[in-house]
Amino acid sequence: MRMKYYSYEDFKTDTTFLIDRVRDAKFEAIVAVARGGLTLSHAMAEGLDIRQVQSIRTELYDKTIKRGRLNIFDTCHLEGVKKVLVVDDIADSGDTLEAVMEYLEKKYEDIEFVSCTLFYKKTSLYEPHFWINEADDWIDFFWERDFLK
Amino acid sequence: MRMKYYSYEDFKTDTTFLIDRVRDAKFEAIVAVARGGLTLSHAMAEGLDIRQVQSIRTELYDKTIKRGRLNIFDTCHLEGVKKVLVVDDIADSGDTLEAVMEYLEKKYEDIEFVSCTLFYKKTSLYEPHFWINEADDWIDFFWERDFLK
Repeated sequence: MRMKYYSYEDFKTDTTFLIDRVRDAKFEAIVAVARGGLTLSHAMAEGLDIRQVQSIRTELYDKTIKRGRLNIFDTCHLEGVKKVLVVDDIADSGDTLEAVMEYLEKKYEDIEFVSCTLFYKKTSLYEPHFWINEADDWIDFFWERDFLK
Repeated sequence: MRMKYYSYEDFKTDTTFLIDRVRDAKFEAIVAVARGGLTLSHAMAEGLDIRQVQSIRTELYDKTIKRGRLNIFDTCHLEGVKKVLVVDDIADSGDTLEAVMEYLEKKYEDIEFVSCTLFYKKTSLYEPHFWINEADDWIDFFWERDFLK
């Protein structure tokens, strides 16, 4: 599989577009899927003027299994809001986002959760409500590349 | 006060330097002060290979008072770690970081918390353990500017 470097300039263009697509829904809070969704969540929160950003983290039980089961480390407190945007960088296998969405929807039955990503792979078992690019290559996000020694 | 645009390129240079300064301390987790510290936390987590990133959020009781009291919305679960890096973009008045550090140190007495920022103002009532630039101007971070309509 080819590797595609995804620069800050690419991100800026796509994120601006993603912000415009979700703006009318008037979300009250953002849940960032850590780590991949952190930078995107920050940018979207600024662009949408949403102050409440929280994060959630997942970990595979068994990292050698591609579609293994996930541990969700829930650090969200979402009481008092009705519409929440769940943000991740990519729906690749789709495991993470599917598990996070199921978990949040079960925990907060009265909240509407909507998911968005920059990238979506056709082979993903979960399709985010909003996504910008279809990923054919391996995406080498600038935050994964630019800060390595 | 002058306004200084802080670009992604500036950020890349400074964050790489900040990562190098804290690398030897071998932190096990990062607490991002939302929203300002989110992008920096993501970059540092990648550069330091730290998977555990959580976030904490603050809000002034009274937004008209510059040095008012803060509400801390704690969404951290830090059981089982010993050294945690607390990350924010700037120590400006210093209110936020001072309150967050006091709060975390009181809640988790057995954990060592170390703070870092990209910017520090001499007039801040709190000085982070690590900071890169002294801020004289108003810093217009790229994440605050680049995604506005």
